[in-house]
Amino acid sequence: MQAEFSLGELAVRFGLTLRGEPSLMVRSVATLSHANAGSLSFLANSRYRKQLESTRATAVLVSADDANHCPVAALIDPNPYLAYARIASLMYPEFRPAPGIHPSAVIGGGARIAPSASIGPLAVIEDDAQIGERVWVGPGCVVQKGVQVGADSALLSRVNLYPGVILGQRCILHAGVVVGADGFGFAPNDGTWVKVPQVGSVRVGDDVEIGANTTIDRGAIDDTVVENGVKLDNQIQVGHNVTIGAHTAIAACTGISGSTVIGQRCMIGGMVGFAGHLTIADDVVVTGCSLVSASIDKPGSYSSGMPTVETRLWRRMVAHLRRLAKKER
Amino acid sequence: MQAEFSLGELAVRFGLTLRGEPSLMVRSVATLSHANAGSLSFLANSRYRKQLESTRATAVLVSADDANHCPVAALIDPNPYLAYARIASLMYPEFRPAPGIHPSAVIGGGARIAPSASIGPLAVIEDDAQIGERVWVGPGCVVQKGVQVGADSALLSRVNLYPGVILGQRCILHAGVVVGADGFGFAPNDGTWVKVPQVGSVRVGDDVEIGANTTIDRGAIDDTVVENGVKLDNQIQVGHNVTIGAHTAIAACTGISGSTVIGQRCMIGGMVGFAGHLTIADDVVVTGCSLVSASIDKPGSYSSGMPTVETRLWRRMVAHLRRLAKKER
Amino acid sequence: MQAEFSLGELAVRFGLTLRGEPSLMVRSVATLSHANAGSLSFLANSRYRKQLESTRATAVLVSADDANHCPVAALIDPNPYLAYARIASLMYPEFRPAPGIHPSAVIGGGARIAPSASIGPLAVIEDDAQIGERVWVGPGCVVQKGVQVGADSALLSRVNLYPGVILGQRCILHAGVVVGADGFGFAPNDGTWVKVPQVGSVRVGDDVEIGANTTIDRGAIDDTVVENGVKLDNQIQVGHNVTIGAHTAIAACTGISGSTVIGQRCMIGGMVGFAGHLTIADDVVVTGCSLVSASIDKPGSYSSGMPTVETRLWRRMVAHLRRLAKKER
Repeated sequence: MQAEFSLGELAVRFGLTLRGEPSLMVRSVATLSHANAGSLSFLANSRYRKQLESTRATAVLVSADDANHCPVAALIDPNPYLAYARIASLMYPEFRPAPGIHPSAVIGGGARIAPSASIGPLAVIEDDAQIGERVWVGPGCVVQKGVQVGADSALLSRVNLYPGVILGQRCILHAGVVVGADGFGFAPNDGTWVKVPQVGSVRVGDDVEIGANTTIDRGAIDDTVVENGVKLDNQIQVGHNVTIGAHTAIAACTGISGSTVIGQRCMIGGMVGFAGHLTIADDVVVTGCSLVSASIDKPGSYSSGMPTVETRLWRRMVAHLRRLAKKER
Repeated sequence: MQAEFSLGELAVRFGLTLRGEPSLMVRSVATLSHANAGSLSFLANSRYRKQLESTRATAVLVSADDANHCPVAALIDPNPYLAYARIASLMYPEFRPAPGIHPSAVIGGGARIAPSASIGPLAVIEDDAQIGERVWVGPGCVVQKGVQVGADSALLSRVNLYPGVILGQRCILHAGVVVGADGFGFAPNDGTWVKVPQVGSVRVGDDVEIGANTTIDRGAIDDTVVENGVKLDNQIQVGHNVTIGAHTAIAACTGISGSTVIGQRCMIGGMVGFAGHLTIADDVVVTGCSLVSASIDKPGSYSSGMPTVETRLWRRMVAHLRRLAKKER
Repeated sequence: MQAEFSLGELAVRFGLTLRGEPSLMVRSVATLSHANAGSLSFLANSRYRKQLESTRATAVLVSADDANHCPVAALIDPNPYLAYARIASLMYPEFRPAPGIHPSAVIGGGARIAPSASIGPLAVIEDDAQIGERVWVGPGCVVQKGVQVGADSALLSRVNLYPGVILGQRCILHAGVVVGADGFGFAPNDGTWVKVPQVGSVRVGDDVEIGANTTIDRGAIDDTVVENGVKLDNQIQVGHNVTIGAHTAIAACTGISGSTVIGQRCMIGGMVGFAGHLTIADDVVVTGCSLVSASIDKPGSYSSGMPTVETRLWRRMVAHLRRLAKKER
């Protein structure tokens, strides 16, 4: 159960302006429409201001502009969503199990596990792996030879780190994540393929979050690199020797082909495909379902996903395109 | 080994019209072209009627129209594919292991496991989870704190249910499924990201099937919801606070961004991308590889996937489009 | 630690022409730009010839044409990348653990495990599975009833083979791979779905590599087939009754719908979507992010992925297309 907090205490702790009774208590978060007594809610976008009117929340995090429309206590901040993130983190602290190694875990020779770390049931820690302070290795994880996991990181469950992978501090890896599988490298040989050994590794920085079933391949020779603060959603594929710049966020199902370098603070939509060997500038936005087939050297927003129309109309668009292209031969 | 059935028995049990000898026995199903003595086959689409001519099946499920073209015994039904599904389910009953808890499974304190349930080797059932009657938790599954699994559901293997997830009755979850990982929620803060705790859960209805390596995120505040009878193929991504309406079927590799609400009885093709915060009406069909970037308020068929042409021709189409768009500035 | 080799020895063993001192030793591979003393590098594409000039490698694998530009020892071959693959395989031999069954593995009755095989910690081998000579079943793998794994194959970790799957020799399956889950088959019944039992299996040939979290469904009636020498990257989805012809290579995130037959020696880009029931000729190339919605009967290169442009421009292209299509009604 989460603790209770008074509005006065929250205002002081997070530097918010309070308009209302400081002794009012909140003990859960809620959306404006589902809130009830004891709930703290937020309005991040003035577009939804109408929802304020009927909210039953005890208090709402709002911007100064929206505060006048708030029928209940208001906690005012220029960035209500950020304030919400911080307060919710206080009210719902991340679960961390007690330190110790579950008796069903299998620990290899030479593995160094910090005494404050927690190794869950049926986890495997192979030889010479290093597990930092307060790390949580959840049930069914496989941490292979020589892997290093930085302090305060969490491998939530069934995460797989291949040999030699290096993970920073305060990372969160969700279920089914695979880091360090072989990159897709084969040399053609008379209609067959000869495997090219993938002898690089993967280096993941600090404060990186990686979503469920995402895969990050090891480098062919040099390493694949995920810099500090990168946030990856579920089912993303990161090819060998890719670099993802610090604080870039990538939505689900995106695929990045080998050796592409993505800049810092980029925001990449879902199901975007990147060709290989590209360079993408810092501060680039790519909207969902786009194909990035050439390097991008300027910040800005880029797109190519075609939006759906009625199938009947779409058939005509496709036929039309084909006709035009043929005409121009 | 599956049992043997006489055509007479099948006709009676499933209300089919038999044209042929009731004492003929079938003991396996087969495609028309690979059938042989003892096989039951079906013709679901008159377009393939020609395959009837040469079939060596003992009997074929057909519509009345196709029956006249059937050279062997015919079991006649207006919906031969549905009849096939039911007979095949009789002939090939789903495997369920004997009740009991494998000695290698790890069971947390306070977990309630029905005596008729089966917990496979190396499964983890955490504290306070509730496992219903006749549930099968396969090898390597991780069922976390407080999860509820309804009667007769099967987690086939290496399935991961995060804390608090609620699963209905008669669900089938395939290997690698992850339900309840954190949604992708971060508040921007001066070029970095602050994690927004994902405090909602996931509620999955009855009779839901979820394909291998599909991921369904927990809600940010309210729950993510998958209603009764939904069928999800492999490698689908369902973002936080999505609702998928009853009896909707979604093909593989589709991604649904956060807070999108999909109606009932929709049929969504493979590799479709849905933007977030959309509302999709009931009975909508979306063809494969489409991008749904706006709400759809009427039933019907929608598309946007561009079909392949020769690369040479495609280059011209792309160049043409660019020229036109620039001209119109 | 990898061994050391003299250039003379490498030249003899791999039939290369050596221009330089045969007694020079190399003990690692490196890219041209990161190489240093003791490194062997390669130049596979003359386009990057400029990188030769400043390399600090001890020796470089090059074509005869590029050899003149090589400032250090040159090992000359018409196909330097292939030669590299072979030498790197010699210098970095695949790790294989010692034979034996880890005490934490769970082995079912009637399973036959070759004495030279290695079964890792917390693996599950179910009843009647057959594990060939020198096979490596890594940590957390689940090999279900009656599965056959051919000699020298490796299931690296957390791989899942459903009942009855047949895997050839010298295959490599990466973490999270699922082979043999049910295909997506449901018969419509008055707005609901009835499951069609998936009674086929999956047959995977020899020398097949399957990337992390890739899924290959079992056949509905007949088997799904992956022929010899096929290379599949990560997060690929292969539907029921698909056939993938020998030596075809498929990049990450591609999805292949049910019953599609892909020819031999095809090269399929990443995130390509194949509709179902298609036939694709041998030697077809499909570029990334294409939608293949019709059969392809001739070798050649095919495309449909739209490349990104600035979002502003893209909006105009989309609007333009819609206008044109409406005009033509």
